[in-house]
Amino acid sequence: MQTITSLEELRQARQSLPVPLGLVPTMGYLHAGHLSLVRAARRECASVVVSIFVNPTQFGPQEDLDRYPRDLPRDLSLLAAEGVDLVWVPTPQIMYPPGYQTWVTVEQIAAPLEGAMRPGHFRGVATVVAKLFNAVQPQRAYFGQKDAQQALVIRRLVADLNFPIQVVVCPTVREADGLAMSSRNVYLNPEERKAATVLYRALTAAQAAYQAGQRNADHLRQVMEAILKAEPLARPQYVSCARLDDLQEWQGEVSGAALLSLAVFIGQTRLIDNLVVGGEL
Amino acid sequence: MQTITSLEELRQARQSLPVPLGLVPTMGYLHAGHLSLVRAARRECASVVVSIFVNPTQFGPQEDLDRYPRDLPRDLSLLAAEGVDLVWVPTPQIMYPPGYQTWVTVEQIAAPLEGAMRPGHFRGVATVVAKLFNAVQPQRAYFGQKDAQQALVIRRLVADLNFPIQVVVCPTVREADGLAMSSRNVYLNPEERKAATVLYRALTAAQAAYQAGQRNADHLRQVMEAILKAEPLARPQYVSCARLDDLQEWQGEVSGAALLSLAVFIGQTRLIDNLVVGGEL
Repeated sequence: MQTITSLEELRQARQSLPVPLGLVPTMGYLHAGHLSLVRAARRECASVVVSIFVNPTQFGPQEDLDRYPRDLPRDLSLLAAEGVDLVWVPTPQIMYPPGYQTWVTVEQIAAPLEGAMRPGHFRGVATVVAKLFNAVQPQRAYFGQKDAQQALVIRRLVADLNFPIQVVVCPTVREADGLAMSSRNVYLNPEERKAATVLYRALTAAQAAYQAGQRNADHLRQVMEAILKAEPLARPQYVSCARLDDLQEWQGEVSGAALLSLAVFIGQTRLIDNLVVGGEL
Repeated sequence: MQTITSLEELRQARQSLPVPLGLVPTMGYLHAGHLSLVRAARRECASVVVSIFVNPTQFGPQEDLDRYPRDLPRDLSLLAAEGVDLVWVPTPQIMYPPGYQTWVTVEQIAAPLEGAMRPGHFRGVATVVAKLFNAVQPQRAYFGQKDAQQALVIRRLVADLNFPIQVVVCPTVREADGLAMSSRNVYLNPEERKAATVLYRALTAAQAAYQAGQRNADHLRQVMEAILKAEPLARPQYVSCARLDDLQEWQGEVSGAALLSLAVFIGQTRLIDNLVVGGEL
């Protein structure tokens, strides 16, 4: 497995990698969710590139960029064990050198939910993903459903800017108690870690109501809100039942695919999770 | 020479074109300036693709999108004679289908001059060029110096978004009397056509002053303004002596490469032109 920092070396190394090439973009501190993406890429592609880059432009000024967890040696050892061909670990200086001034923005699909709570977040995501795509030139790129809106934003980016890339969205990987894998779970103390299962409990309760025939969007949101309310450590930021195609909130009757999603502070840690009902991502 | 409309056929055809591939993006109604780009691409590349697309997103609401001149049969015949391999002629519907919502913006370098006079223009340019680059995947792309700020914006776009593409800027091609070739010259009536030489006359006068040792930026701008003032049909929009690297106006002494540039209405027709002194684009 090659580990490369500079863009020039990456381009050089890229030449000898067989296609189709699968790219798994990550911010490192890898968990089983990331590894499931790597395995999907390994199954489906002739070569696999993983990028590790904690992208500063997708963090807000009050967010956790500085304390975002990092452990490169561990990441590299995990990726080597998965048979990854190349890991690209650019520096912020390489990605955003002095004079950097170009931004990619996706509009409507990036506006609600995470986009509303984290202004500029998806501009940072779309920009860095466009850069990764141009640098690595993959045929396929792998993203987790846990960041469902991000996956939709990137699908739109790929379609709109004519990237010749297939976006593959893989299922959310969860702990035994349902908590979605996230690098940010490391922030949770033991008490918060227990409380954090409330996200999945709320989502599965709404999913169960949907499966039992409940189609009223307000009711589905209320099912989630009631469960969140019962957890004293949880401070919900949003609770959404949105159309899967454009992420606009369902009003009245849910008559098509829906993304049930939520963002919840558990103590100081902001967690997100989602489930899709009536369709798939 | 293949002429293709759909993105899918383009991608298919692209596979069998040898590299390096040169792309010449145009809005059609080709003149000798365009053909010089095609010839440069033909000399330097194993295959040449020309795109013809009057990009609606780079025109302002009050601009000349609807009456922009078009003559596809003539364009195709000119390109076939130059040995072009493939011409891509997408429709607006192909480039901007319903639901389109992704934009590429370049900031500082796109802000002054044309960017200040034509809000949104360079967002349209950067976006369509990113789309053309992803669709055609050239190794080199050819642009004319006549649109000098556009060339600088695209160089910045390519560097910032990691496009593996060399941007080649070719010299402005001029009529015998110095008027820069432009598809918009067709708008000029005979009297305006004569008056239109004032742009080049103003630029060459400032260039001569520079070459004679004049380094005061205000003076160089005044040389151009005086010549424009003597032409009754000319209404100058801007007259600039800017740093070539960032397009900020030189203040006081010109101590490095400068872009002398201007935008002038001749009757209802807006023309631009430029010369570089003390360096090159």
